[in-house]
This record gives sequence, structure tokens and C-alpha cells, in this order.
Amino acid sequence: MAILQIGAGGVGWVIAHKAAQNNDVLGDITIASRTVSKCEKIIESIKGRNNLKDTTKKLESRAVNADDVDALVALIKEVQPDLVINAGPPWVNVAIMEACYQAKVSYLDTSVAVDLCSEGQQVPEAYDPQWAFREKFAEAGITGILGAGFDPGVVSVFAAYAVKHLFDEIDTIDVMDVNAGDHGKKFATNFDPETNMLEIQGDSFYWENQEWKQVPCHTRMLEFDFPNCGCQKVYSMAHDEVRSMKEFIPANRIEFWMGFGDTYLNYFNCMRDIGLLSPNPVTLQDGTVVEPLKVLKAILPDPTSLAPGYTGLTCIGTWVQGIKDGEPRSVFIYNNADHEVAYKDVEHQAISYTTGVPAITAALMYFRNEWSGKGVFNMEQLNPDPFLELMPTIGLDWHVQELPVAQPEIKILK
Amino acid sequence: MAILQIGAGGVGWVIAHKAAQNNDVLGDITIASRTVSKCEKIIESIKGRNNLKDTTKKLESRAVNADDVDALVALIKEVQPDLVINAGPPWVNVAIMEACYQAKVSYLDTSVAVDLCSEGQQVPEAYDPQWAFREKFAEAGITGILGAGFDPGVVSVFAAYAVKHLFDEIDTIDVMDVNAGDHGKKFATNFDPETNMLEIQGDSFYWENQEWKQVPCHTRMLEFDFPNCGCQKVYSMAHDEVRSMKEFIPANRIEFWMGFGDTYLNYFNCMRDIGLLSPNPVTLQDGTVVEPLKVLKAILPDPTSLAPGYTGLTCIGTWVQGIKDGEPRSVFIYNNADHEVAYKDVEHQAISYTTGVPAITAALMYFRNEWSGKGVFNMEQLNPDPFLELMPTIGLDWHVQELPVAQPEIKILK
Repeated sequence: MAILQIGAGGVGWVIAHKAAQNNDVLGDITIASRTVSKCEKIIESIKGRNNLKDTTKKLESRAVNADDVDALVALIKEVQPDLVINAGPPWVNVAIMEACYQAKVSYLDTSVAVDLCSEGQQVPEAYDPQWAFREKFAEAGITGILGAGFDPGVVSVFAAYAVKHLFDEIDTIDVMDVNAGDHGKKFATNFDPETNMLEIQGDSFYWENQEWKQVPCHTRMLEFDFPNCGCQKVYSMAHDEVRSMKEFIPANRIEFWMGFGDTYLNYFNCMRDIGLLSPNPVTLQDGTVVEPLKVLKAILPDPTSLAPGYTGLTCIGTWVQGIKDGEPRSVFIYNNADHEVAYKDVEHQAISYTTGVPAITAALMYFRNEWSGKGVFNMEQLNPDPFLELMPTIGLDWHVQELPVAQPEIKILK
Repeated sequence: MAILQIGAGGVGWVIAHKAAQNNDVLGDITIASRTVSKCEKIIESIKGRNNLKDTTKKLESRAVNADDVDALVALIKEVQPDLVINAGPPWVNVAIMEACYQAKVSYLDTSVAVDLCSEGQQVPEAYDPQWAFREKFAEAGITGILGAGFDPGVVSVFAAYAVKHLFDEIDTIDVMDVNAGDHGKKFATNFDPETNMLEIQGDSFYWENQEWKQVPCHTRMLEFDFPNCGCQKVYSMAHDEVRSMKEFIPANRIEFWMGFGDTYLNYFNCMRDIGLLSPNPVTLQDGTVVEPLKVLKAILPDPTSLAPGYTGLTCIGTWVQGIKDGEPRSVFIYNNADHEVAYKDVEHQAISYTTGVPAITAALMYFRNEWSGKGVFNMEQLNPDPFLELMPTIGLDWHVQELPVAQPEIKILK
């Protein structure tokens, strides 16, 4: 058995550690990235933590340009993995899927292919380029598992679990995501500042009454009492899983909400007002041309540098309302992840941890032939039970909380 | 008669317009700048406004590098002015003074030579490089007038007027500066963002009980009721005239205060926290090296673009407390300038207007032989009466307001 991991950023870091802890099942591990030194740093960390379970198995690095389909095919043929795990930025998804199709090897990723902020690439069209591989993958006899992080990912498994076990009829699905941790910096982003700031600026899309609704960012807000994180303000935002849930789980409203503290939003608004969040190039007095957003990336702390001192919890879950046995019901299915616990386990923070652990749980589902149908699948489409049974042993537990039945009090801002 | 103006930014714009309106006294006008097109744009504006009083006099442009003493000397010898007016950035002051000394022509500027933010160049040492020319100028038989804007400049004339006419003994001098105008932008600076942001970040220096006190920016605040601008928060800041007043007017405390709205300070603090106000280079992912502060300059509105829609008033003045005829007295001597009125007169806003009008008033004092002693002089050293009599006819009036006697309620922040 063998896997090939492509990508060596924060999520890749956790995926590699978790793969190593489970290499008795996953087999030899190859980590590939444009910058091979990033792979080697991860391998060093894995060895330093004694996270390689079966030390007779290989753990190696390779250099690859993930935009280059031919180079990817060549690498896949050399490594001969049973599964390619894409831990790269989402804009390489299509190239890697094409390479997997050509090399006839199964595929798994953790977020959607496209830029949710740009016209024609937003939530309603988000999965189109990857769903276009459905027939090709089925015909090639390989499996594609899309969006196997936490959100997207586990939150859809929670929704599928709710459909299967907790409800007869679904009314609303709200994905709730808050990071109540503290990295000790005045302002920093938990993952790539460029991706993060583009994501946050985009219009929100939610599905309601059989149609897409589009609203400017931070204009729909509600307060939610997160288990162990307290009452937090969350804002409607564009996110991958709204699109896939709309496809596979009938509901009257499906929406994604992310927590932002007032301080964070103040920094965000200032930076946006002065034009610092723009991806459009500006010319300096000396003629140098730069994109302001790339300058922001250079001056903010490297997200990976935040992990050592990070404290506190995240809470991500799926809030489902509907009918069970003729009675209205409201349920929140969630995980709390602890930044310090994540760091002790894999030398990274909980934001990356909550993405990497589900990816390896899904990979193990594939290797156990639980999730190995031929074609391309989102997490809602797959049997939630074995996944939710396994995930706590990989590092993330989950809970079901019954809530009082009540529609969320959504405040419209601006 | 003739003058040579060096510099064609916002202040240079107003100085040139005001010189043209008074060219029956000042004679031929030559405007020189590194970028000759900036001079030509000003000349076009002067002619468009019919601001050239005596149309038989010359109004010309020249290109010059104001860092290059030899080039400056050559230009002065060609133009043969009676006075060089330095409207360039303060870091060219010493080069232009040296050129004036070599060419034996009098000199006038509007702000201090050095960077008030950098170690060894702060308020206590601010005038050292320019005061070093005192003997050379006296020996060459030429006049140097330093800091002839509003602040520094007129506020020192106000202080000299208070000493001469309103007080027997001075206790405290507080220079008060607020811009209560509105340019309609969420955030913009009224002059070069780079200079502005460096100035605001620096520690404040004030003179108290015979010694310099140094405190971080925005940590000393008071609220002051500005005539026609209302009650405004002002913050202790490093500024040129604190140094020169300390030299020439004995007082127990001398301090400079600038108004900042809460919204402005919030932007400032956000930008500082994320590292955007740093002059130190950073390297982007693609290897490009940039100074964050220069990127800020490129993304903020060009200060000169603010002038057309600018409304509202500025208020700048000198608040003097002391003893007159054995009784305590508190007096505020001030000007209100109106952005719209300034724009109608010279197509620029009031911030530049309040610097340019005093410079030309001082130049006229020199040409009238009122302020033409041999050597180097700050504004406190010169007879305030003819200056204050003339200035209202050039564009800025002034008023004396008696205040209740009371020490300012200074709040210490952070």
C-alpha cells in the first residue's frame, strides 16, 4: 500500500503526521511540493515526534509543480500510490484530478477547486469543474472524494447522519464555525492571508426556498451559543459545502456562518477601506508594481508560526432543524478542537488539525473499502456511520446537543 | 527683483500662486523641481486663475535635483534671485542652505530639516544642522528664515506677539492644531502619506521644567474647544516649533498638540499593528522587495486630489498662559482657514494654504526690509507686528480669544 500527498502547507503538515500515525494501513508515504524543503521539514517533524507508526514503511519527499499535469502523471507512475491526497491550494484540484484520471489512481481533497470571490466561480458554480469528472472517474474505475476536511467535510457527514438517524424531514441546515483560540498577535490569519482575505471579502451565497440568495459579506449576522466557546457573533459567508449540501440534502435553507470578533472585523474593514485587500496591481513611485494583498501577506505573521503559543478551542458543527416523529427538533452536532492538544500531537494548530484529521479518516475509509465507490463523491453522499465511528480515534471526537426549537434570529446589517 | 522657488508639491503649489499674486513686489518667479511637469501644472493653474498680478513679470519652470548642491548653485547663478524659497521636502533644507551660502542669496523654508522620528534627529537636535549656518550666513551678508509656515511659523509669531503685548511673564505655551474639514474619503492623508505617517508615529517631545520629556505618540491627550470647530481631542506630538520656542521664549512648559478623530486613530493603529507603517523593506513571495510605507502611499488617495471637494475649517493657534499686570491670564491666538475658500483662491486645500500663505508673507517681510537681518532666524526672533498686520491681506486672518485661566487637563493614556 502507498499514498502520494501533494502539498506541504499547514494542512499538508497535519495530513502527513496523521498519515504517518496510520501508515500500518496507508503504507509508504511520499510528500510532494514545489518546494521540496517544506516536505523535508514535515518529515523531520514526524520523525522528531515519533509519529511514524510502522518504521519499516517509506517516508519520502519529491519536488513537483502541481499545475503541470504531465509532471503529476509521471510522479504518480513513479510512486504508484493507491490514493493521491491533494493537500495543495484549491486551484490545483482540477490538474491533479486530471492526472489521477490519466494514471488511474483514486483522489481525495479538502476544499473546492475555485475562487469563491470571482464572478462565475462562486458558490453556485463552485463544484462544476470537479463534478465534470464524475463519468471519467467511474469509467476509469477510480474513486474521487471531494472536500474531505472539516468544513467542507465533516459538517456534511454530520448532516448526512442527521438525515439518517435524527430527522424525518429537514427544514434548515446552518454550518457554524468559530475559532475561540488566542494566538497572542494583534492581527494574524490562521491560514494563507491571501486566500483568507479573498474568501472573507466575497459575497455570501445561501440556498433558501429553492433559490440562491447573494448578499455582501458581513451583512447577515447571528449570535450563537457555542459549546465550551460561549456566545459568539457569526456572519453568513460563501463556503463550499453550501453547494454540495444543496445538491444532496433537500432543505428549505442551507447557510454557512463564520465567527469574527469585533476586533478582527475592525482590522478587516480598515484594510479593505484603504485598498490593502485588493489583488489588483498598483505602481509605486519608483515604478515597482505590486499587488497590495501580496504585500499584506508578506507583513503579517506566517500562519505556521502561530502554532506553538496558540491556546483555546475551536467549535465547528452542523445545526439542523426539522421534524422527527411529528415533532419539531433542533440539533447541533459538533466538535471542539484544542489548539494546544493539536500542537502536542502534530506540532500544528487546531485550524489545520481539524482539516487534516478528517482527510486521513476519509483516506482510511477508502482503504477499508467503506468509501470506495467508482466515481466522484462529496461527503454527504457517503455512509456517515463508519466515518463517525473512526474519527475520534484519529484525533477529533463529536457530540450531539439537543437545542430548543427556534428559528435563528438573523440580523441584517448595513 | 526675482525669487527662485524649489519644490512643486502641495505647499509649493500655494506658495507659487501667492507669489504670483504678489509679483509686483517679488518680481520674476522661477519654479524648479526634479519633475518639471509639476512646475508647469502649477504655472497653468496660476494663469487659469488669473493669479499673475503683474503680467509683464516672468513665470518660468526649471528642472533641478535639490540634493545636488552644485546643480543648485548653478541654477541660482542663472536665475539670480533675491530670495530662494524652499518648498521641497525638509530633507533638502541643508543642501539648499549650502547652495545659498555659496551663491550668497537669502533663504526661506517652511519646516525643519530632519526626520523627527529617527534616533539623534528628534526635537532636541532638530535645528542643529540648520543653526550651524548662523555664522556663515551672517558673514556672507545673507538672511535665512527658518520654518515660515503656520506650524512651525505663525504659531511662533503669535507667541512672540504674546510676549511683546499680552504678558509680563509666560508660564505655558501650547500649540494647538486641528483640521475639522471633511474630504469625503474613508481614510486619506492631507500631505505626503509617507512623511505624515512617520511624523505621527514618532515619540512626542515637550519641554517642561527646564528639561525635555519624551513620551510615546498618542499617550498625552486633552480636549480643547476650538473656535468655530468645536471641542476636539488633541494629542501631544513632536513638532519643530517646540524646539525653537524653547530656544527663544522662556516658559515652564512648551508643547505641540494635534487633533485626531477616533476614526482616524483607529485606521492609524490598525495600519501600525499590521506593520504597514514601517519604512523597513520586506520581501514578497516572488522576491520583490518593498517598503510597506511606500505601498501605503501608492494605495491611498493622492493628497492633491482631495482639494476640489474639501469642506470645513482648520483651526491652528497658540494658547499662552502667564501673568499680566500681576494677574493670571490665558489667551488663544488663532486662525480659522476654510478649505473651500482656499480652493477658490489657489485651487488647493487649507492644509497647504496655511503653510503657503505665511511663507509668502515672510518673503514680503524680507523684501520690505522688515525681516532682513544677516544670519539665520526662526520666526520667534523676528518682529511680529508688521507680519501680523500683513498676513490677513495675503489670505489668513487671526484673532485673540481670552480664555478662563486653568491648567489644561492632560490625560495620560495606555
